[in-house]
Amino acid sequence: MPDDLLNLLNRFARFGATPRGGVRRLAASAEDGAARRAFAEEAERRGARLHADPVGNMFATFFTAPEAETTVLVGSHLDSQPTGGRFDGTLGVLAGLAAASAIHARGVRTRHNITVANWTNEEGARFQPSLTGSSVFTGKMKLAEALALEDRNGRTLGAELEAIGCKGTSPLPLRPVRNLELHVEQGDHLETAGLQIGAVTSSWAARKITIAFIGEPSHTGPTPMHRRRDALRAAAAAITHFHGVMEAAARAHLLHWSAARIVAEPDSPNVVASRVTVWFEIRNPEHAITVQAGDGFMSSLKPEMERQGIAVEIVRDEHRPGTMLDPGGVEQVIGVARDLGLSATRMMTITGHDALMLQAIMPSTLIFIPSVGGLSHNEAELTHDDDIRKGCAVLEAALLRFATEPHGG
Amino acid sequence: MPDDLLNLLNRFARFGATPRGGVRRLAASAEDGAARRAFAEEAERRGARLHADPVGNMFATFFTAPEAETTVLVGSHLDSQPTGGRFDGTLGVLAGLAAASAIHARGVRTRHNITVANWTNEEGARFQPSLTGSSVFTGKMKLAEALALEDRNGRTLGAELEAIGCKGTSPLPLRPVRNLELHVEQGDHLETAGLQIGAVTSSWAARKITIAFIGEPSHTGPTPMHRRRDALRAAAAAITHFHGVMEAAARAHLLHWSAARIVAEPDSPNVVASRVTVWFEIRNPEHAITVQAGDGFMSSLKPEMERQGIAVEIVRDEHRPGTMLDPGGVEQVIGVARDLGLSATRMMTITGHDALMLQAIMPSTLIFIPSVGGLSHNEAELTHDDDIRKGCAVLEAALLRFATEPHGG
Repeated sequence: MPDDLLNLLNRFARFGATPRGGVRRLAASAEDGAARRAFAEEAERRGARLHADPVGNMFATFFTAPEAETTVLVGSHLDSQPTGGRFDGTLGVLAGLAAASAIHARGVRTRHNITVANWTNEEGARFQPSLTGSSVFTGKMKLAEALALEDRNGRTLGAELEAIGCKGTSPLPLRPVRNLELHVEQGDHLETAGLQIGAVTSSWAARKITIAFIGEPSHTGPTPMHRRRDALRAAAAAITHFHGVMEAAARAHLLHWSAARIVAEPDSPNVVASRVTVWFEIRNPEHAITVQAGDGFMSSLKPEMERQGIAVEIVRDEHRPGTMLDPGGVEQVIGVARDLGLSATRMMTITGHDALMLQAIMPSTLIFIPSVGGLSHNEAELTHDDDIRKGCAVLEAALLRFATEPHGG
Repeated sequence: MPDDLLNLLNRFARFGATPRGGVRRLAASAEDGAARRAFAEEAERRGARLHADPVGNMFATFFTAPEAETTVLVGSHLDSQPTGGRFDGTLGVLAGLAAASAIHARGVRTRHNITVANWTNEEGARFQPSLTGSSVFTGKMKLAEALALEDRNGRTLGAELEAIGCKGTSPLPLRPVRNLELHVEQGDHLETAGLQIGAVTSSWAARKITIAFIGEPSHTGPTPMHRRRDALRAAAAAITHFHGVMEAAARAHLLHWSAARIVAEPDSPNVVASRVTVWFEIRNPEHAITVQAGDGFMSSLKPEMERQGIAVEIVRDEHRPGTMLDPGGVEQVIGVARDLGLSATRMMTITGHDALMLQAIMPSTLIFIPSVGGLSHNEAELTHDDDIRKGCAVLEAALLRFATEPHGG
């Protein structure tokens, strides 16, 4: 089974392959559509029944418990960042498929069925916010809101899912009792510590603030300098200020932060920018610290913006308190790894994952394997074959336990 | 004739009309195509013969001198900024059409023919650099280079001109001996001084520097802060630094400057930006001052970029020395205005115009009329009807002189 997974990974790395060895498979793009069709084919060939829900989440169910109305979910996402790696998300979907089909192929009867899931727009690269499919699944986001999300060219997620033929009409007809996800670490903790398996206990909190800086369009040539209300000048000052405020706060707290995306309008070199939108992020293990750091940034921003005649509009202020994953699942993963003779550790995750979102409505478990240098959201992202084999073995063993025990273990 | 022009202006304001009273008519867009077709229809209805050259410049010739192989050009551009005004460019094309067709309708025989020109992509909003059509016409830019210019979605000017059916196959078959352009001022000098006509003597110099800041993509969550090479953080610092350096230089020189356009890649909130491109502009009456200010900015930029681990790539460094327009044309405009009882002044222009580009190969003349508050590249741009009537009267009288005198006056 593990080499089945390596073959699958090689095959799927071709959908949206980039010249530098990564993938560009934005949610609901043609490349995502091709990967989704390949996933459906592979799953059906192995005996699964396919289902898509209205936000395009895909479910491939192996009926290992045909009389049961319950199922255990295992999966992740096939979409990627614009210059993403081959493993992020894809590993979790394909390892789920390899593990579930291996259990199914052995004719094992379980208490719950097993459903391999591919969640829509986990990355949030093309449509914001991220974790769209799993958010709709848990009821955190309304379906209509998700389908109306627009990319930078004004195309909606709903229309783009229809265009690639991946928009279903009804929810998953089985009741999920538990969720399981395998993922590369996206950090170097396991590698540095020389460990093979991470059982994720909880996640860092994140605060994601999208701010629009609003000035006035004018000609970049003749307009007198003192009359300009330059939204890009203001946004640049705000980004620099943000890094300064966070750096100061990081002396007291373990902060990670970024301002990674910017959109300036009207997007012409000859027009003073009238509206510039910037996506800010602040992360810390404690929710309260991210709130405090964000508040400190925003309140200290105002005087300079007022001085420049720039209005500040908070477009979105998303609080993601840390999530505590099901403690029973953590112990199962640690136990399974020990049984297989692998070294394992309990650890936190800094990044968001569908497994964290799904914990809101069912016990959810997240397993990490090492990633070389912790490199992530980068075409050079790499996890060695041997680590993949070990991760998949743990995933299969844990999945079998969860599918055979009451309430999914 | 003047009210003919007001009707034309109202009609053309509908092509790409925005809710706030401006126009969005990007070069070689569907809206530009519609305006171009309307221009061709109006010109043919009035007796002109249409010609398009391979970069999409349109020429509507009134054969007021059927035996001559020479012509006098009068015109401007129909493309606009993304949130542009109704008069910028459009006034010059339609006033040229109104004036030329009025002369033609009177049956006047001239020494040279009269050709109304619509120059492709004057604005440089969708495709950079600006003044594309007139640059190709003068030989400053190669045709192949112009047709290969890409917009932000990777569409080329050549393909987009073909898509709207506006790409011709051969150059203008007449020899132009002189050029004339009417334009709104885009500044408030005339309005403030209470003057009706500006005869432009020369233009400010401009230096346009496009810089790419190059870092490394990584995950905005787990990547340790000290390992990030954040191109947006660097670009923001560079923009702030730019404004500081320019403000200091402006204490000694009359400088105008801007950083108006920015493109960050890979354009995801969850990936540290790996490449950010910024369009900088510096303007002063003296070429040497723009060179010195740009050099000062770039050399002082390096240490901070090196400290942040960011590579700096100069994508384009365009020097536009000021242009001296034909002095004879200036005196003709002053004389015509005086004959019509209008107040006129000699003045410089800060902005670029097709008339400045065309001066490279023929005597060229630029006439300004007042613009309310000097508001430009803004949907609220406005010039009063009475000022338009006066400007068009001067244009027609100057055009008739140029077309009837040897060598275009």
